[in-house]
Amino acid sequence: MADPRFFEPAGPYSLDALAALSGAAVQDPGAAGRLFRDVAPLESAGPDDVTFLDNRKYVEAFAQSQAGAAFVEERLAAMAPAGMALLIARDPYKAFARAAQAFHPSPPVVPGRAPSAIIDPSAVVPADCAIGANVVIEARVRLGARCEVGPNTVIAVGVELGEDCRVGANVTLSHCLIGARVVLHPGARIGQPGFGFAPDPAGPVKIPQLGRVIIGDDVDIGANTTIDRGSGHDTVIGRGTMIDNLVQIGHNVVLGRGCILAGQVGISGSTRFGDFVMAGGQAGFAGHLSIGGGARIAAQSGAMRDIPPGETVCGAPAVPIGLFMKQVAILQRLAKKKDGR
Amino acid sequence: MADPRFFEPAGPYSLDALAALSGAAVQDPGAAGRLFRDVAPLESAGPDDVTFLDNRKYVEAFAQSQAGAAFVEERLAAMAPAGMALLIARDPYKAFARAAQAFHPSPPVVPGRAPSAIIDPSAVVPADCAIGANVVIEARVRLGARCEVGPNTVIAVGVELGEDCRVGANVTLSHCLIGARVVLHPGARIGQPGFGFAPDPAGPVKIPQLGRVIIGDDVDIGANTTIDRGSGHDTVIGRGTMIDNLVQIGHNVVLGRGCILAGQVGISGSTRFGDFVMAGGQAGFAGHLSIGGGARIAAQSGAMRDIPPGETVCGAPAVPIGLFMKQVAILQRLAKKKDGR
Amino acid sequence: MADPRFFEPAGPYSLDALAALSGAAVQDPGAAGRLFRDVAPLESAGPDDVTFLDNRKYVEAFAQSQAGAAFVEERLAAMAPAGMALLIARDPYKAFARAAQAFHPSPPVVPGRAPSAIIDPSAVVPADCAIGANVVIEARVRLGARCEVGPNTVIAVGVELGEDCRVGANVTLSHCLIGARVVLHPGARIGQPGFGFAPDPAGPVKIPQLGRVIIGDDVDIGANTTIDRGSGHDTVIGRGTMIDNLVQIGHNVVLGRGCILAGQVGISGSTRFGDFVMAGGQAGFAGHLSIGGGARIAAQSGAMRDIPPGETVCGAPAVPIGLFMKQVAILQRLAKKKDGR
Repeated sequence: MADPRFFEPAGPYSLDALAALSGAAVQDPGAAGRLFRDVAPLESAGPDDVTFLDNRKYVEAFAQSQAGAAFVEERLAAMAPAGMALLIARDPYKAFARAAQAFHPSPPVVPGRAPSAIIDPSAVVPADCAIGANVVIEARVRLGARCEVGPNTVIAVGVELGEDCRVGANVTLSHCLIGARVVLHPGARIGQPGFGFAPDPAGPVKIPQLGRVIIGDDVDIGANTTIDRGSGHDTVIGRGTMIDNLVQIGHNVVLGRGCILAGQVGISGSTRFGDFVMAGGQAGFAGHLSIGGGARIAAQSGAMRDIPPGETVCGAPAVPIGLFMKQVAILQRLAKKKDGR
Repeated sequence: MADPRFFEPAGPYSLDALAALSGAAVQDPGAAGRLFRDVAPLESAGPDDVTFLDNRKYVEAFAQSQAGAAFVEERLAAMAPAGMALLIARDPYKAFARAAQAFHPSPPVVPGRAPSAIIDPSAVVPADCAIGANVVIEARVRLGARCEVGPNTVIAVGVELGEDCRVGANVTLSHCLIGARVVLHPGARIGQPGFGFAPDPAGPVKIPQLGRVIIGDDVDIGANTTIDRGSGHDTVIGRGTMIDNLVQIGHNVVLGRGCILAGQVGISGSTRFGDFVMAGGQAGFAGHLSIGGGARIAAQSGAMRDIPPGETVCGAPAVPIGLFMKQVAILQRLAKKKDGR
Repeated sequence: MADPRFFEPAGPYSLDALAALSGAAVQDPGAAGRLFRDVAPLESAGPDDVTFLDNRKYVEAFAQSQAGAAFVEERLAAMAPAGMALLIARDPYKAFARAAQAFHPSPPVVPGRAPSAIIDPSAVVPADCAIGANVVIEARVRLGARCEVGPNTVIAVGVELGEDCRVGANVTLSHCLIGARVVLHPGARIGQPGFGFAPDPAGPVKIPQLGRVIIGDDVDIGANTTIDRGSGHDTVIGRGTMIDNLVQIGHNVVLGRGCILAGQVGISGSTRFGDFVMAGGQAGFAGHLSIGGGARIAAQSGAMRDIPPGETVCGAPAVPIGLFMKQVAILQRLAKKKDGR
């Protein structure tokens, strides 16, 4: 059960109700009425908790789990311990996600403005927003309904957010237009000028950065991630894109819909992603590239050329994953042969 | 034209005036008097805007641009669409930069202290500085004339800044001495103790970090970048050096003048750069290295040895770029040969 | 001598006293009573300062140092300049660390609450804590005795810290339980939800992150480092672990005791480290791995498989260092051979 200092579950829910809301099937109809109070991991779940098995690595923990119920694929159901109620799902992780959302819905926004918040009179801040302590909201900012803004966050002149955004603590926003239901984690920096200058022997000539950051609906931006505004074009983050912590996104970058960027990814200026691109942790992208929709770039890869749609690449410089695997195998064989001498 | 919510262009300027301030030449003297209202990218520029062509990749966009005028190299001038006034420049990007600066000069600092700013009585803050909301300025801090400090920034005991510095929001400064015209983007952390300890079975023995960070004039430091103070020596950032976002600079690092560090570069303790070193994104440097003036380190490279002045290196471990290219070619050939069998 | 604007040494100490507190031996008993006023690096130390020689790279600077005394290994003592008093130590860096700690003990916490600090009435904040300007401490937070909290830091609902913690400026803490004597540098983000969602064509299904971050005693966490809370399990940082700047630690990661993570390391979700693991700068770890105690992962390595205890690995994908060295050597030989043709 989750630590009550930090989480308070809704519920309880019957197995039936959990099946219905997650699209899973109750294996044993006799258990359909059993009530559950929370979700929990395999190892710590108790008889009132629902858990899940998703990764074969954890089959043993599953077999020994004390959980009252579990989401599981049909083919692994036989590994369950006696007495565990089973919710059969094609994608147990996603089904579990829906159950967890039911037990732990986003806490409602509690309207209010901390007395210490400093809000410019020209800013539009609906009464149903929750504005935290020491927040600074500058001139002509516009927030949508039910936005939450964490303590010590700064929203600079002219920024706009859609409805139901959740902005964490110590965030800085400037020169950006943000959609609805966007989540910004603590320390995110959006809209500062990008790294733009022309080299000159007398010192770099800085180029005013005159674009914006445009963030689509349902985007998530990780802690201490930085997204520079465009230099003339805009920097654009497509709808539903998920960005992890400490990611760097340069000016004029355009990301499509539903992209996934893991931690510490870096994207140089003017590179464009199609929809549903996935980039593993610490992957890097040169500037002015075109990364096709559905492409997958493995962790730590270095993309130095365009990548066609749907391609999976790996390595630095990044090559198709089949070629990468061969390179790795050859190097290891040569190194072992050298050993043999 | 730039979004008026965020930018307000100065001007208008005649083509002649733009040529004069940028060092370009008006191709058609008959157009010298035409007036322009802003700068804009090739694709969105209109007849009142000035644009530029710098990268051959964008020749087609140039040929179809609606811009009223463009900076361009002589040899590409023929690609211009009919009716576009041309400003011929050897370095169109730099010439454009100067024009953009004319249309968008740094907004003047508006003197004032937010009532919520907390300034120690022993601090020296000239009346012509602009101190934002919730700024904390501790004892014996000294700011130069016309400094701007963004909201929720903390300047700790004894820190000194020169004239005309621009410090963004949510920045933390301690144990540092900063020159004139330095720009610090949001979330930069300057002067915290470095990663200094001696290993010991009973737990690491921490070493008091007794140096400072010394930052030269005209330095730019990116969002969420971290620069640790020296351990005894100082950490030094040379004049005119440009540092992008999320860069990590360890204690006692010394950077020369005019260096350029792209996003997510990491430099381990006590490494020294000469002047005008360029490091690509995510490049990493071991500690106690000497990187010669004018050296270029490609993105994601890992420098594990000293690099002579002027050398260009690539790879991890970093080797001269010619050797790197050969390594890549050989690996790819071997991998394909294996395919052929 | 350290800059008096930022540091004020305790002392003076006699050579004898320094030997006693550091475990070193005075080489010349006649010098035992000499007094010293501070520590300093080889190059800038004067006759009242104590320095050290640890890295052979700096033997020449040692021979020319003006320092009054130095910690040095026996075998290098002969390189000392005339008149320098010597403190012979098996580990001169550690001995120096203890001397430096004597001259520069952590400044005592000065109890007090800045009038601008906003502390929820339900929070427990002992009177001997030092709470900085604009700090926000939310409901049910509990601080141990003598904690120091820097300006503009936010401590969210329910967070607990042990005794003698030092939290820097602009830090954000939520959903975490922190031990004693923990140091958090500026901009650290602890406890935000991890990167958890199940992919779905209609947009990612977010998984409520229901775990915590548990941080052991004597842990150090670098500037702008991010540590996500667990998804159901906890994220755990073992006692005495040292974490540098800009490190990313995903949900459910478990680090043992005394681990050392250099700058910009990234660890994906659910990976577990044993005790005393060392990871070099920018090293990356895939998720769900087991990294054995005492393993060493070189800078920029990419760990994609489990690593046995005590192993040293290098490269991406990471392999045992001996194999890595052979791979590098073979590639370089092949590349040169190609040259020869």
